[in-house]
Amino acid sequence: MSDVLDRVRIVLCRPSHPGNIGAAARAMKTMGLADLRLVQPARFPAPEAEWMATHAEDVLASARVVASLGEALADCVAAFALSARPREWSPRVLAAREAASLALERASAGPVAFVFGPESAGLTNEELFACQFLVHIPTHADHRSLNLAQAVQVVSYELLVGTGARVPGMRKERLATVEDLERLYAHLEEAATGAGFYDRASGSKLPERWRRLFSRVPALEREEVNILRGLLNALQKVRKDIS
Amino acid sequence: MSDVLDRVRIVLCRPSHPGNIGAAARAMKTMGLADLRLVQPARFPAPEAEWMATHAEDVLASARVVASLGEALADCVAAFALSARPREWSPRVLAAREAASLALERASAGPVAFVFGPESAGLTNEELFACQFLVHIPTHADHRSLNLAQAVQVVSYELLVGTGARVPGMRKERLATVEDLERLYAHLEEAATGAGFYDRASGSKLPERWRRLFSRVPALEREEVNILRGLLNALQKVRKDIS
Repeated sequence: MSDVLDRVRIVLCRPSHPGNIGAAARAMKTMGLADLRLVQPARFPAPEAEWMATHAEDVLASARVVASLGEALADCVAAFALSARPREWSPRVLAAREAASLALERASAGPVAFVFGPESAGLTNEELFACQFLVHIPTHADHRSLNLAQAVQVVSYELLVGTGARVPGMRKERLATVEDLERLYAHLEEAATGAGFYDRASGSKLPERWRRLFSRVPALEREEVNILRGLLNALQKVRKDIS
Repeated sequence: MSDVLDRVRIVLCRPSHPGNIGAAARAMKTMGLADLRLVQPARFPAPEAEWMATHAEDVLASARVVASLGEALADCVAAFALSARPREWSPRVLAAREAASLALERASAGPVAFVFGPESAGLTNEELFACQFLVHIPTHADHRSLNLAQAVQVVSYELLVGTGARVPGMRKERLATVEDLERLYAHLEEAATGAGFYDRASGSKLPERWRRLFSRVPALEREEVNILRGLLNALQKVRKDIS
C-alpha cells in the first residue's frame, strides 16, 4: 500500500500562508503521503508551518522548494490540477474520486502529482494546462471553496481509500512524462509557426487546443510521443532542405 | 439534493477550541450542510469561531448550544459516532463512505446525526453508545488522527458525494465522426509518405500506431481533427510549392 502512495506528490503553487503548508502536511501525513513540493511559497520554512503540522514534521522537513511548476512536475507521468472554478477551456475534468483512482493506476509507472493553487486565486491557466487533468472536488452549489488544507485532505483521503480498491493496471509501457509532453508541445508550436499555420502574436488558442487534445489520451506512451515528433521532424526536414 | 442534506446534523461534543467550531462550520457549508449542534462547548460564541468560519457565518449563527448529547440526538432516526480509536466494545463499525450512504438512506425518514468528540480525548464510551453506529475514517496506519475540522470535512464530503453530486460537464462540441477520423488517418499516411517518414511497402505498423493513439482520445472533436489536418496541410504546402 505505502509503495504506491510514495509515488504520489502534492504540489502547492505559490501558497501565501505558511500555516496552510503545515496543515497540508498534516493532512498528507494522516493518509500516508510524504512527497511535498512547494512552488515559490511566500514564506518557508516558517514557524506557522511547524505549528500547524502536528505529527507531520517529517513531511515538512523533507518538503522541497522549487522555482517553477515545470520543475515540480518534470519526472511525473501524470499531473492533476485542482480547481474549484469551472473553466471554459480545460484539460479533462475528473471528480476527486475518479482522479484518485486514475492516479493510483498511473503511479505504477512513475510519480504522479496533485497540484493546488494559491489560497485566494487558484491556479493560472498556464499552470492548469501544465497538467493533464483538472480535478474537481464536488461541493454544494451555493458554496464552492474548500480551503487549501481541506482540499489536500479530501484528495489525500480519496487516495488512501483508493489503495484499498485498486483496479488492475493497463498494459505496461513507458508512459510519457510531463517533460516529453512539453517537448511535443514545443515541437508542434515550432512546426506550426514555421509552416505559417500559427502565429503566436495573433492570440490564437492553438497551443491550448492541442494540450487539451493530448491530455485526454489515457496513459499516453513515450513511444507515441516519439512517433508524432518523428513525423513532425520528417515534415519539417523538407522545408529545411530547401532553405 | 439539498433536501436530504438539510436532514443531516453535525454534533460537536465538548469542543475545546472555538476556532475548530468555525472551521467545522466552514467544512459543512462547502458541502451543503447547515445543522450544527454544540454540546457543552468550552466557549461559544467566540471571535475565533467567526474568524475560521469564512462564508459560513450563517451556519454558526444558527448553531444551537445544548446541554447534553441526548438532547442533540432526541429527534434523530440514526446517530453515527466518529472515532479514530478502535474500541473493544462498540456499535457496528462503518467506514466513512458506507456511513454516509446509510445516513442518506435513513434521512428520508427523519434527521440523522454525525457526532464528533473533543479534540484531544474523543468521545466517551457513554457518548459512543448513545449512537447506533461507529464511523471510522480510514487513515494511514502510522498516523491516526485527523483534526476535528478535517474529520468534519471528510464526512461532509462523503455525504455530498453520496447525494450523487456531479462535476460540472465539459463544454459540448461536435464530435468527430468515423469518416472524419478516416480522413485524418489517410491524410497522416499521405503526409508521412510524402515526407519519407513512412513506406507502405515496408510493412511498418505506423498507421496502426496512430489509430491506436487517436482512438484513445475520449470524445475527439471534429474541430480537433480539423486542426491536425490544417497543420498537416500547412506543412505539406511547403513541399507542393516547390514541386
